[in-house]
Parts: sequence; C-alpha cells; structure tokens
Amino acid sequence: MQWRELPPAIYFEDSGSPVERSSYLIELHTDDGGSYDVVNDASSPAARECCAQQSSARHNWEMNYQEAAIYLQEGENNDKFFTHPKNAKALAAYLFAHNHLFYLMELSTALLLLLLSLCEAPAVPMLRLGIFVHATLELFALIVVVFELSMKMRWLGFQTFIRHKRTMVKTCVLLVQFVEAIVVLVRQTSHVRITRALRCIFLVDCRYCGAVRRNLRQIFQSLPPFIDILLLLLFFMVIFAILGFYLFSPNHSDPYFNTLENSLVNLFVLLTTSNFPDVMMPSYARNPWSCVFFIVYLSIELYFIMNLLLAVVFDTFNDIEKRKFKSLLLHKRTAIQHAYRLLVTKQRPSGISFKHFEGLLRFYKPRMCARERYLTFKALNQSNTPLVSLKDFYNFYEVVGLKWKAKRNREHWFDDLPRTAFLIFKGINILVKSRVFQYTMYTVVAVNGIWILVETFMLQGGNFFSRNVPWSYIVFLTIYGVELLLKTTGLGPVEYLSSGWNLFDFSVTLFAFLGLMALAFNMEPFYFIVVLRPLQLLRLFKLKKRYRNVLDTMFELFPRMASLGLTLLIFYYCFAIVGMEFFAGVVYPNCCNTSTVADSYRWVNHTVGNKTVVEEGYYYLNNFDNILNSFVTLFELTVVNDWYIIMEGVTSQTTHWSRLYFMIFYIVTMVVMTIIVAFILDAFVFRMNYTRKNQDSEEDNGIVLEKEISKEEVIGIIELYKRTSAATETAQLQKIVLQMDKYGQMSTVFLGRRSRTKSDLSMKMYEEEIQEWYEEHSRKEESQPPLQEPASASSSSLKPLSLRQRSQTVI
Amino acid sequence: MQWRELPPAIYFEDSGSPVERSSYLIELHTDDGGSYDVVNDASSPAARECCAQQSSARHNWEMNYQEAAIYLQEGENNDKFFTHPKNAKALAAYLFAHNHLFYLMELSTALLLLLLSLCEAPAVPMLRLGIFVHATLELFALIVVVFELSMKMRWLGFQTFIRHKRTMVKTCVLLVQFVEAIVVLVRQTSHVRITRALRCIFLVDCRYCGAVRRNLRQIFQSLPPFIDILLLLLFFMVIFAILGFYLFSPNHSDPYFNTLENSLVNLFVLLTTSNFPDVMMPSYARNPWSCVFFIVYLSIELYFIMNLLLAVVFDTFNDIEKRKFKSLLLHKRTAIQHAYRLLVTKQRPSGISFKHFEGLLRFYKPRMCARERYLTFKALNQSNTPLVSLKDFYNFYEVVGLKWKAKRNREHWFDDLPRTAFLIFKGINILVKSRVFQYTMYTVVAVNGIWILVETFMLQGGNFFSRNVPWSYIVFLTIYGVELLLKTTGLGPVEYLSSGWNLFDFSVTLFAFLGLMALAFNMEPFYFIVVLRPLQLLRLFKLKKRYRNVLDTMFELFPRMASLGLTLLIFYYCFAIVGMEFFAGVVYPNCCNTSTVADSYRWVNHTVGNKTVVEEGYYYLNNFDNILNSFVTLFELTVVNDWYIIMEGVTSQTTHWSRLYFMIFYIVTMVVMTIIVAFILDAFVFRMNYTRKNQDSEEDNGIVLEKEISKEEVIGIIELYKRTSAATETAQLQKIVLQMDKYGQMSTVFLGRRSRTKSDLSMKMYEEEIQEWYEEHSRKEESQPPLQEPASASSSSLKPLSLRQRSQTVI
Repeated sequence: MQWRELPPAIYFEDSGSPVERSSYLIELHTDDGGSYDVVNDASSPAARECCAQQSSARHNWEMNYQEAAIYLQEGENNDKFFTHPKNAKALAAYLFAHNHLFYLMELSTALLLLLLSLCEAPAVPMLRLGIFVHATLELFALIVVVFELSMKMRWLGFQTFIRHKRTMVKTCVLLVQFVEAIVVLVRQTSHVRITRALRCIFLVDCRYCGAVRRNLRQIFQSLPPFIDILLLLLFFMVIFAILGFYLFSPNHSDPYFNTLENSLVNLFVLLTTSNFPDVMMPSYARNPWSCVFFIVYLSIELYFIMNLLLAVVFDTFNDIEKRKFKSLLLHKRTAIQHAYRLLVTKQRPSGISFKHFEGLLRFYKPRMCARERYLTFKALNQSNTPLVSLKDFYNFYEVVGLKWKAKRNREHWFDDLPRTAFLIFKGINILVKSRVFQYTMYTVVAVNGIWILVETFMLQGGNFFSRNVPWSYIVFLTIYGVELLLKTTGLGPVEYLSSGWNLFDFSVTLFAFLGLMALAFNMEPFYFIVVLRPLQLLRLFKLKKRYRNVLDTMFELFPRMASLGLTLLIFYYCFAIVGMEFFAGVVYPNCCNTSTVADSYRWVNHTVGNKTVVEEGYYYLNNFDNILNSFVTLFELTVVNDWYIIMEGVTSQTTHWSRLYFMIFYIVTMVVMTIIVAFILDAFVFRMNYTRKNQDSEEDNGIVLEKEISKEEVIGIIELYKRTSAATETAQLQKIVLQMDKYGQMSTVFLGRRSRTKSDLSMKMYEEEIQEWYEEHSRKEESQPPLQEPASASSSSLKPLSLRQRSQTVI
Repeated sequence: MQWRELPPAIYFEDSGSPVERSSYLIELHTDDGGSYDVVNDASSPAARECCAQQSSARHNWEMNYQEAAIYLQEGENNDKFFTHPKNAKALAAYLFAHNHLFYLMELSTALLLLLLSLCEAPAVPMLRLGIFVHATLELFALIVVVFELSMKMRWLGFQTFIRHKRTMVKTCVLLVQFVEAIVVLVRQTSHVRITRALRCIFLVDCRYCGAVRRNLRQIFQSLPPFIDILLLLLFFMVIFAILGFYLFSPNHSDPYFNTLENSLVNLFVLLTTSNFPDVMMPSYARNPWSCVFFIVYLSIELYFIMNLLLAVVFDTFNDIEKRKFKSLLLHKRTAIQHAYRLLVTKQRPSGISFKHFEGLLRFYKPRMCARERYLTFKALNQSNTPLVSLKDFYNFYEVVGLKWKAKRNREHWFDDLPRTAFLIFKGINILVKSRVFQYTMYTVVAVNGIWILVETFMLQGGNFFSRNVPWSYIVFLTIYGVELLLKTTGLGPVEYLSSGWNLFDFSVTLFAFLGLMALAFNMEPFYFIVVLRPLQLLRLFKLKKRYRNVLDTMFELFPRMASLGLTLLIFYYCFAIVGMEFFAGVVYPNCCNTSTVADSYRWVNHTVGNKTVVEEGYYYLNNFDNILNSFVTLFELTVVNDWYIIMEGVTSQTTHWSRLYFMIFYIVTMVVMTIIVAFILDAFVFRMNYTRKNQDSEEDNGIVLEKEISKEEVIGIIELYKRTSAATETAQLQKIVLQMDKYGQMSTVFLGRRSRTKSDLSMKMYEEEIQEWYEEHSRKEESQPPLQEPASASSSSLKPLSLRQRSQTVI
C-alpha cells in the first residue's frame, strides 16, 4: 500500500507532454485546424463538453486519448492497423462510420436489398410489388450503399481502399447491381438476374455480421483439405460407377445402371443414402450376392471416407481456431502497445497515470461512469504504484469488460427488516434452499410430465378443444406459482432472477399462466401455450452435472451457432435466387408423368363408389416458385432424405444439367454442415477438457474481481474532477462518499463481474504456449520494427520504433 | 566398450542360484515331481531337448525362465496377474491352453456354433439340414467348449474361475445351450430359441478375438454419457410429439400425427430423416408455416443433439484410449518387474546375464535364432556392462519385436556384376528413380483413366461382351508391364517389393494380365478383372502428401477397423437371430395391402395392351427368412434410409410392439456407428497432430536400430552354446563367423526393424505424461506392495516385496 501514502495530486496530476503525439494532431497543426470542428462534432458528447474549455496542452492530450481509444477498438475488433485513420480528415470519416447509427443504416440497407427478392418477379403472392416500385426501392438502397462506400473511401484513403479486397468486391457488385437496376427500370421488365444472388455481399460486409465473415473465412480455409478428400470420394465413385455399369446394365429391369451417367448419378445419390434399398432392389432380386457391391460401396464411401472428411475438417478447424486465437491475442497486444505509447508522458515513461487513463476511457467507453473508470484503473494496476505499467496495461481487455458493483454487506435482502419479518423470511429462505424442497419440486415436475403424457394419450378422440379448463392444469400451475412466490420472497427478486435457471422457470410459469387465461377466455390458439408446459420438465435436467455442463455450453455456443445458421442462410439465399431464376414454375401437380418419380408429383381425384378420394403426391409443393418456397425446398435438400425426388422432378421438366445445381448444393451444404459438426465437436470437447483440467476448482459464475476503495481515494478523484469541472462525475462520486459516511466505513469493496468467454477459457488452456507466443512475438519485434505495417509505411504517423528500443533511447 | 575386454565366461557364466525361485519349482519339490512330465511335454521342443540332460540347478533355472516368460506374455496380452498359473498342475493346463492349436480349436468351435444358424430352422434353402444332424453337431461343439472350459478351470483353479466374470457368463450360456440342444434332439422339433443369440459369447471369448472384446468394453464404457444425451434427445422428442399431436391431429388428411403413438413413432423416424419431406407434406399443404415445426425439430434434434452425442462419445473415447494406454503400459512394466526378479542371481542382483536372458527367450520366443537372441540382448543393454539392468530391461517389449538383418554393404543388388551389366543396371536404376520417369507414368495412368471412362461411356449400347480384346487394353498393359520390369531390374526384386505401393502396382498389373488372359480365352466373368483396371489410378494419389498420410493411416487403421466391423457383425448376429425367431416368413409379396407402405410390397402382373407389365415393390425381399437375408435387411436398417418401410411392413403383419425391435436396433447401431466415427476421428486427428509435431523429422519406415557385433563376441557365444551342446545354434553362429572371415571383417553391423505401432506413436505423444505415470506408479508401489494381486493373496508364490525393498534387503 505504498502508493496510497503519496498525495493524490501526484498520480492525478496533468503533468508534462506525451512522448508521442497523435498523428491527427500533427496533421491538424499542418492543416491549420481546417477539419478541427468535424472531429469534435463526431466525437462523443463527453468529449465535446471537455473540448469547449481546453488549453492547447489539454487539446494535445485529447487527440492522443482519441487515437489510443481507436487503436484499442481496432485491437478488439481485429481491424488491421493498415486501415487505421491516418489524418484528421480520415479520423472524421472514421468516427462517422464507426457508430451504431451508421452500422444500423448499413444493416438495414443490406436487409432491404435482400428482402426485395420477396417482392420481385417470382414474388410471394401477398407481397408482389410493381416493377417500378421495387426497382426504385433497389436504386434507393444502392445509393445509400454508395454513400457508405464513399465514407469508407474517405476514411481509408484511395490507396488503402483499392487494396482492401472485400471493399473492392463490394464496389464491383455494387456497380453491376446499379446497371441492372437501371436496365430493369428502363425496360420495365425483369430479365434473368442471377446477380441478385450477390446481394448477400452487402450483408456480409456489415459491421454487425463480423461473425458471419469469420465463419466464411473459416469455411474457405477448410476448403483445401476438404477438396482433397472430396476428390478421393469422387474417384471411388467413378470407379464404382464403371463397375456398376458393367455389372448391372445387362439387367433390363434395372433402371438405375442402364447408362454410365445414370450409374454415376445414382451412386452420387447413394452416397447420401437417399435411394438406398431401392437402388439395390432390382439387382438384388435377380442375384442376392449383388448386395456385396452396395455394401462395399457404402462401407468405403459413406462409413469411411465421409468420416475421414469430418476428421480432416475437424482437424483443420481445430488448428485454425488456435491460430486465430493466437493472432487475435497478438493483435490485441500490439494495439495495447500502440495505445500505451500515446498515453505515457516524457517525464514518466514507465506508466500511465490515472489522469490519462481516464481520458482514454472517456473516448473508449463514453458511457462508463467515473467510479467504474477508477475501479478499472485500480484493477489494472497490480504493482501498487501510481502508474499503470505496460505489463499491467496488457490486461486491459480482460478488465475493461467488468461490471462493477458495491459488495453488499447484507447477506439477504430482508436483513434490515424487523425481527418477526426477518425470521419468517429467513425460514422461507432456508426452506427454499433445502434439498427436500428442491427434490419435492422435481417430483412435482416429473408427475406433471407423466400427467401431461397420459392426458394427451387419453385425448385420442380429438375433442381436445373442450371449453372447460382441466383441473390438473390449475393444480400444477398453483404449485408452480407458490414455488415461484416462495423463491422470490426467500431469495429476493434480484438474486432469484440472477440465475438463468430461475429465469427460465419464471418465464415458463408466466407462459403457463397466460395459457390458463387464454383457456379461460376461450381463445382459439391457446394450445401453443399449453404445449409449452412440458418444457417445465427441462428442470429435471438440472439434477445431473453432465446436463448442466451440456446446457451451459449450449448457451455459451448460442451466439456462434446463430452466426453459423446465418452463414447457412446466406448460402441458401444465393441458391434460392439461382433456383428461382431457372426453375420457377417448372414443377406443378402431375408435371412429371414421364419420369421415374411420377408418383410423388401425382394429384388425382378418384371416384371410388360415391366417395371422392384424392391421391396426392405433394412433391409439387417443393418448388422454387418464390423465395420462401425455395428456402423450404432447400432445407429439404439439406436434410437430404428423398432429395433425388425433387431433383428428378425438376430434371424431367428441364434438362439433365439441372442435376448439377442440386449436386453442387449438396456439396456446399455438406461443407457447411461438416463445419457445423466440427464446431460443435470442438466446442464441447474443449469445454469438457477444460472442466476435466479444472475439476478441483469450484464451480464459478464467470470472472470476479474484488477491489477496495478508501474514502480518501474517492475524495482525491473528486478533487481531480472538480478541477476539470465535470459536474455529473463529481456528483456521482460524492454519492459514494455519502454512503460510506452513512455506514461509517472507511472504505468500500467493489466486485467486478463478467461472464466467462471462450477467449478466457483458451487463455487458461494454452497458458504455457501463450508465453512462448509472446516471447516469439517480442523477439520478432526486436529483430524488425513490428508496428510498421506494410500499408502505413508511406504515412509518417506511426513511429517505427519498437517499445524496447524506445525505452532504451529514453534512458 | 569396457565390457568387451572381460573374458566372455564372466557374462555368459551360469553362476549362482536365482534370488527368487519359480513357484512351480516350489510346488514340484513338495509334490515330489508328480506332474513333472506334464510340464516338459507341453513346453517347446527346444526346452524338451535341454531338459534331458539337466542338473538340478539347471532345472531350477529352467523353471524360472518359464515363469518369467509367462509373466512377459501376460504383460503383452494384458492378462491380469490373478490368472497367473500358481502351481505345476496349473502350469501344465496353462501351457496346454496357450498355444495356437488350442486357440484354433476354440475359434473353430465358436464359428461352427455360429454357422449352425445357416442350417437351422429358418435355414438358407441350399444349406438346410435335418434337425437330428444340426442338433448333434451342436452338441458336439458344446462338448468341445466344455472341454475347453475344464482346461481353463484346471489352470485358474476353482476360486479364480468363479471370480472370473466372462468365464462365468460363458459357463451359464453353455448350460442353457446344452439343455436346449438336448430338448431339440429329444422333441425332434425346433422351438423358439432366442438364446441362440447368445452363441456369439463363445466367439467373443476366443483368444483371437481380443480386439473385439476391447471394442465391446469400450462401447460399454461409452454408454453412460451416451445414454444421458439419448435421454435428452428422447425428452425433446416427447415434447415435440405432444406438440405435433395438438397441432396436426385436427387435419384429417394427415396420417402421421392422428394419435400420440403415431406422432411419437413418426418423430422417431424423422430423427433419422427417413420420412422427411413426406411427414411434413400434408400439414405443409394446408398451412405453409407448419414447416417451422419440422425445421425447429430437426435443427434441435438432428443438427444439435445428435452432434452433441458424437461430441460426448468422442470425448469419452479419447479419454478411454488414453487411460487404456496408460494401464497397459503400467501392466507391462509390472510384468517386466516380475520377470526380472526371476532372472537375477543372488550373486549379481543388479542385472540379468546373457545366459539367463537367452534362457528366457527360449521360452518366450522359441522360434528366435541364437543370433537374434544375442542381438536383442545387445539392443537392450545400453549401459555397456555384461548385465542388463532393470532400467534397460523395461524396453523389452519394444526391442523383442525387432527383425534383425545383416546390413548389406552393397548399395544395389547388381554391384557384384561385371562392368557392362553394372552400367546397364545402374542406368535403369537412375532412370527408374528419376522424377521424369515417375511423372511420365502418372501421365500414362491418368490417360488410361480418361480412356477407360470415355470407352465405358461409348459402350452405352450394352454389347460390351465383344469377343475381341480392345487394343487400348493391350497397349496400356504393355506399358505397365515394361514399367514393372524396369523397376524390378533397376531396384532389385527385394527392394521393389518392400514398398507397399510397388506391391500394389504389381498385384494390380498382375490382375490386369489375368484379365487379359480371361478375355483372350473368352471366359465369361472377365469383367470383374477388367473393372479393376481403374484401381491403377489410385497411384495418382501418391503425388500429394495428404493422400499418402491418409492412405498410410488407413492401412494402419485397418486391423482395428476390421475388429470394429466384426463387433458390428456380432450385434447383427444377435439381432438376426431374434428377428428370425419373430419375423421369419411374415413378409411376402402383396402382404401389407392394409398398411401405409403397401406400394413398396406390391407385386402385380398388369396386362397393358398385349404386354405384361410387372409392377414390383421389391420390399418383400427385405425379410428375416434366413440368416443371410436378415443380415442384408439389418444392413439396410443400418443405412437408415427408408427403414420405416421395412418396419411398417413387419408391423402391419405382426403387432405394433415389433417397432420396439427396430427402434432398439436403430439405437444400438447408432451407438456402434458413433463409436466407429469417434474412432476414425480420433485416429486421424492423433495422426495429424503427430505429423504436425514431428514435421521436421524425415519420413520414416518404422523403428530401426543398428547394432554391431565383433567376431570375438560371436566366438564367445559359440563357446557358451557348445557347453550346453545346442548343435543347431552353434552351427548357425559358425556361419556368421565364416561370412566375416570371407569378407575379412572384424565385425558385422545388424539392422533391427519393425513397423511403427499406435503404441509407439502414443509413447512419443505422451512422453512427458508417461514419466509422471511411472513416478506415480512407483510411488504407489512403495506405499503398498503392488505385486500382491487380490486374487493371489492366498497363494504363497508371489513375494509381496517390491523391487526397491528387495534390493535394499540384499544390500
């Protein structure tokens, strides 16, 4: 506690000038302040407030804070440093293009463009729009995209813009779309517009779709080994096709192998097992031993090479995940180094003072309050000196995400209540926490589950729309209601709802109650809510550790799974557009009477006796008539079963080249699905290894950090803020002092909490390797200036000095 | 080379008595040699020869050698030490039951019992036997099993026999089978004999089926986590079944959800995707949004939980593999310690002399020649003293498998030929090894592949049974023949055939040649060989490292894959027997006209105009009428596609409880298949990690060890053998001396080689952990006597002293 004895002024003091000046500042001084206003306009309100009264030195520092914050943001978002804004003009554009309003605009234009396909040519009947309307809408959206791109160009500069691949592709697609939209508008008729499939690029490029971009990159990185094994697969397929042709084509009742093409197509379908016993049957009927051919084929292709495919993708995936983690870690480290250099002063080059740290946070996280800023500073500062050294500053990203709360001294929410009430609540608390209560509830849930099952089983008749509420429903709901009430009162609403499981219970019970209301008031679609009741049973899975593990991992995985799903949807969109352009309207009832799959497309009205029997094949519903239908059809193709019926139906109405579309789609979804499987495998195996490695450590709910703040420290900070006359901050801090006074404490303990991310787990798993990476990284740094990015070499803003070199020159 | 200067007598000398005496010997001396003859009868001929002239001390040693060899065998085969034969009588039975003749008998009786089901009641038509015949055969086989079991009992002793679970189960099954066989023989009619499914236990218990036993154990160990996730899966299924019933049963044209049972069954089938678009179609036709139900169901169940299942099994599998490796390693270590104690003398307790090592090997590997024994001893002995210490002896299993060959001084086989011939062959050698030659051959193979494809494509007509040999066939075959000739002469036949790839080329070319012969002589089924031609194309895959890796791993995996396949077949057998007992003869053409799958079982003769059109559903072929048919049907069920047609067909002819059979079969194959996938995944990921870890080390062809032997050493050993008058050994060694004299060498270098096993890879991968295991193991040893197995506690044969304790007492 050595540093607390120093007068606060020392570590809050605004002393000296920075070692390195922000590049914007250099730019500003040469520009003579031309774009100066823009900067302040775009920056956060807090920054603007401060700027009004700043001295020149202060102004210098503000610029440094801003650039440091940008570096840290780039580190966090994994933006490459060669896109770092290089001068004040670029900064203005950067700030304009980096806020949620802009991101939302980006996202909504992209979505608008994608949704247009609902209303264009083969439109969903209810949403059909005139050509004039949708073409105008499209042009409007495209103009917005042009605006976005021009902002980006302003920020990146022409040189970098040209070199940024993704942006260039986007620009090209934009051009093509523009031309086509105008052509449509002029001709007043839609032509074959397969290029619409490229519209998803606008979505992929959105800031919010970073996860999708990462997934796509990962898919493309996994492609080379995938293709290798795919070739092996196709090779065996060709060999077996030739063999099958020789073996089975003499059998004239076998339609599957009569030509080499049929032989190939049917073995491709067999790979997906979709036509399995059928394709074997004609030859099997003739000679039972012909099954050997199919068994060998399936064993090699399906059970061996397909699994090999998974193994190879899984392995690559594993490897990529680790490399990605490594590069992100080092990228963040570099970003922190950049920021650090902008925040240390010439007088004290060994660390960052709170003054400057606070300035940084004002830009990096404008919404953070003064107390949190100081706590973050204290949490970072592990050496107990007034300055945060570079070594401590490296933990910036881990610490800045913490949510701080004063540690309550009261154990229960009812501790302050009068004695009688306290005893009652304490009793409820003990009851609620007891094992007996828990297991009773589990039993009730289990009984409820069996009840529902039996009840449903008895309903066979179908008259389950009876108007009176079943009494069992009311009984169970009452029990759940009482439980909810007891738990809320016993634990306090805040603690009760802080557990995910309780939240789940709460919402399910609420829904059940709504269902009861609906039932009581005779609302028609009540059963949607009634059937949610069995979800209560999910609580039973809390009992076992493996389920808790699995369900926790499931929740952790959810964002990533959603992004993978979105990636799949983007592929769907492309294929749906292509499918609609080529196959819209080709499939209809009784369309394919000449093909082998005629039965599935049949729609006949028999009159047997005096009853009309409809014989329906239903497959004509799996068409590409509009984008929604296409999506459903593509999902059916993804599930793979009976996909050849859809393929053959379309093929019989078009050419046999249509099969290529379906086969390519199969291979693409196979890639994506394999990636998804690999991802789930990887995530779970990782998680289980992690729990196995940390078996002895207690179960934890995320990262928790504890920091104590003394009263004098708070008063010191208030002094500092008073000097800069930041009224709101001062008031906030004053409140803490008041509270301390009220309870007569000399200090308060704050708890910083955040949930554990994959990155935290990886940090722990690769602990030893990380040190190696760091050493390797700093060795590289020493041998060549690392901060000099290829693209920024021409700009004068980034000093090529490495940190070590710099500190040497200072000493 | 310090120890070479000692006179050979010192380290070959037969000095002193053993520290510990073989338990059989103790037994023998108390028994006064009653069972003495038995021992000699059963042991190897080499041992018998020696025994004729032994002194009493020598006899003591022989017994020690034998017990040490048994310990080492037990270590190798992972036999627990509590089954170690404890006295001379047990030893006789042990030796009788542990040789290949006995193993073969075991295997053949088990196979006979299994194959009987080909001829029993619902027999394969061609193989039907009278009840009297097959029941007698069965009784005969069962009596052989009784004999085997009695031998085992004699070896294990009654106490251990009772405690050995597998053997007890076998005994019970045997009893049941016996009773049933007699009942059949008496009643002269087969009753429902589901117990026949238990016959596979006889196969599983065979010594040769150790891999199958390990697989089964692994499957059972993976079951608990599997069942946990399965419950989660079934839980969601039930919830969705209730939901589906409420949602879709009002639609009367929807036969899939009209009762809760149907709803459940169809969702179970949907989990396998087998009925996918069909089950959705009726409701989809009514309301397009109902597809959401199916999409959500499939996403949760198929794409999430099923993959979770794989992840959990994969993780467990990984863990089990490692634990298995660890326990096997420690088991081997303990076995080596046991053996070591029996081989050291009281005078020199620090190591084993060659004399005793040689004695051990005579029992452990009777077929090893004297030279190899000495080389093994030298390879083990790394400390260059006349004795092998315990530390060196720990490498026993790694070294004893090496195949020793004198290192040839000649580089090529033609080095000794006259100058002209040498130059010619040298030229061929250089040509064959050149890249140009290789790539030319690849091009030829590729052209051949395209040629075959085009040729087959042109054959559309079907008249490919033309009598003249196509010239292209001859041309390509000639090229391959010339290549083969050049390679054989250039590299020498031995070196040529030592590479797996060359062997492959050779056999494919040979087959192609046989095909040509068949073609020339107009043999009918020639196309079997013709179609093998494309296999030549596999050579193209040599070009890329990944393929080499994949194919190498494939070959390494092959034995394990085969054992997994066999395990699956055993499950098939059980299900086939049960299926035959219940469903034999229930399915026939037009059997299921009342069910929903009637079309698939239809067999109608239409007369359209004047042509007879046969409308055939073929599914009646997927029946359980005999065991071969059952196997094919079960394979179809394994592939899963359209399995519900088979299920519904059988169900419509029997009761709806039959579905249980099919569902249980699905779950069982799911377990086995998941294990297979996990195994392939694990093996490949392991292999790839291994190659990644050892990237810089050159590609190696297994384990190679080099040892030099000097002439005087050989002469020393000859002396030793002369003393024991082992004539064949002496002659053999004399030959080496002669050869050395011929070339005027003072020493010869020998190379020991063996292929790399999974265990070697694991040793390298877990290098660090292995040291920890050893330490932990020896710590445990110190704290409690480890050699005292629970079962052997009563016998006096095993000294409870640990090795360290012992050496302390000696000192």
